[in-house]
Amino acid sequence: MGAAGGTGGTSGGGPGGEPAGVPEAVEPAFPEGWSDPDYHAAVVDLLGLLALTELVAFERLADDAALAPTLPDKAALAGMAVAEYGHFVVLRDRLEAMGVDPAAAMEPFVAPVEAFHERTAPGDWLEGLVKAYVGDGIGIDFYREITAYVDPATRALVVGVLADTGHAEFVVGRVRAAIAADPRVAGRLALWGRRLVGEALGQAQRVAAERDALSTLLVGGAERPGADLAEMGRMLARLTEAHTRRMAALGLSA
Amino acid sequence: MGAAGGTGGTSGGGPGGEPAGVPEAVEPAFPEGWSDPDYHAAVVDLLGLLALTELVAFERLADDAALAPTLPDKAALAGMAVAEYGHFVVLRDRLEAMGVDPAAAMEPFVAPVEAFHERTAPGDWLEGLVKAYVGDGIGIDFYREITAYVDPATRALVVGVLADTGHAEFVVGRVRAAIAADPRVAGRLALWGRRLVGEALGQAQRVAAERDALSTLLVGGAERPGADLAEMGRMLARLTEAHTRRMAALGLSA
Repeated sequence: MGAAGGTGGTSGGGPGGEPAGVPEAVEPAFPEGWSDPDYHAAVVDLLGLLALTELVAFERLADDAALAPTLPDKAALAGMAVAEYGHFVVLRDRLEAMGVDPAAAMEPFVAPVEAFHERTAPGDWLEGLVKAYVGDGIGIDFYREITAYVDPATRALVVGVLADTGHAEFVVGRVRAAIAADPRVAGRLALWGRRLVGEALGQAQRVAAERDALSTLLVGGAERPGADLAEMGRMLARLTEAHTRRMAALGLSA
Repeated sequence: MGAAGGTGGTSGGGPGGEPAGVPEAVEPAFPEGWSDPDYHAAVVDLLGLLALTELVAFERLADDAALAPTLPDKAALAGMAVAEYGHFVVLRDRLEAMGVDPAAAMEPFVAPVEAFHERTAPGDWLEGLVKAYVGDGIGIDFYREITAYVDPATRALVVGVLADTGHAEFVVGRVRAAIAADPRVAGRLALWGRRLVGEALGQAQRVAAERDALSTLLVGGAERPGADLAEMGRMLARLTEAHTRRMAALGLSA
């Protein structure tokens, strides 16, 4: 849980060094310039989406554990699932500290997240591994990009829960070994990787269209930094490059 | 992980107060009277079976989480799964400290444990809850009975990992509420409970027949206490009574 560990119950006015005045309400204050209601709604959306993503990642990795060919592989996958659950708890606790019902914050994203997983149910152990690595990789990169547009306390929390869970190295080793044993699986898994990206983009567009607060996070506000069109283009380019690098690490063409 | 926390890497000769002599080998010594190879094999079997049970409990609770009707229920089940995984880690670490490959210790029990779960795949959320409560309850009672016949360090470890994971209270509340809402489900779930016990006994007999070391644990050895036939009968009576109490707590007839 790393950087997120110390942020649980703090309700100070951010790291800006403001004098500690009267005790504050339950809801942690955002630093100046970050206090408008739209921004608050956007952060609740962001944390709700991320909490749901972690809870579902737990479930999915636990499912992958059931498909594992050996007991040590099963235990390794289960351990990664447990790490994701730890991240979920950090996010749930923060939402509660903000006075927000975590289930209510997660609810709007259940349909698109479930739709993504229904459309990309892995056919076997290797497809599950590629999905965990490639899919989570894009998600993590995207959330990291978004942290450029949030207040420092939220940024520290999000960066903390995005910490690698040991996942990447494990998956790369297993997938490369499978390709070495039977080079034909590379073509099938490369197609699978492309399908994952397509489905992820489809559901991301659905979320962006339905959740105004969340999508305006990127655009900024009167006193908040935002991204212009050129910066959005650069962000997409960075996400695409990182995806291509991950596929290459697996020995697959993107 | 409670009581098991402090036992991880200790290799002292048990709590009997023997003088600390030369540094011991990697393998933790058993106290006097507990050192014959048959007893060692029986403890490896016991810890291997228990480790596998916990790992599979993790998987099964994670599956139940996927069936949960609400996000808070899902998170609660996931949290219980995570607690089971913590127990698995304690057992795996102890097997490693004994110089035993955990996967090899677990392997002999994969077939009967999987057979049990295949024959008792829950049809819905409520059947999953009853299975978790009633099935795990019998397992926990049985392992606790067995701790009467093992050395003190093994006993402390096993009792520690059998600690309740918050499970029981959660299940009782959910099942009673479901019966209150629709009394007809009580009949179906009572039948289900009986089927679970029958299948569990069937697989337990299979394990007892195939694993001599484990089944002789109960009978004892030259310098080890064991159970006579009368005590075995009393043990079965205690297990049955506890099962009936659990079914009654759910509002079901055993």
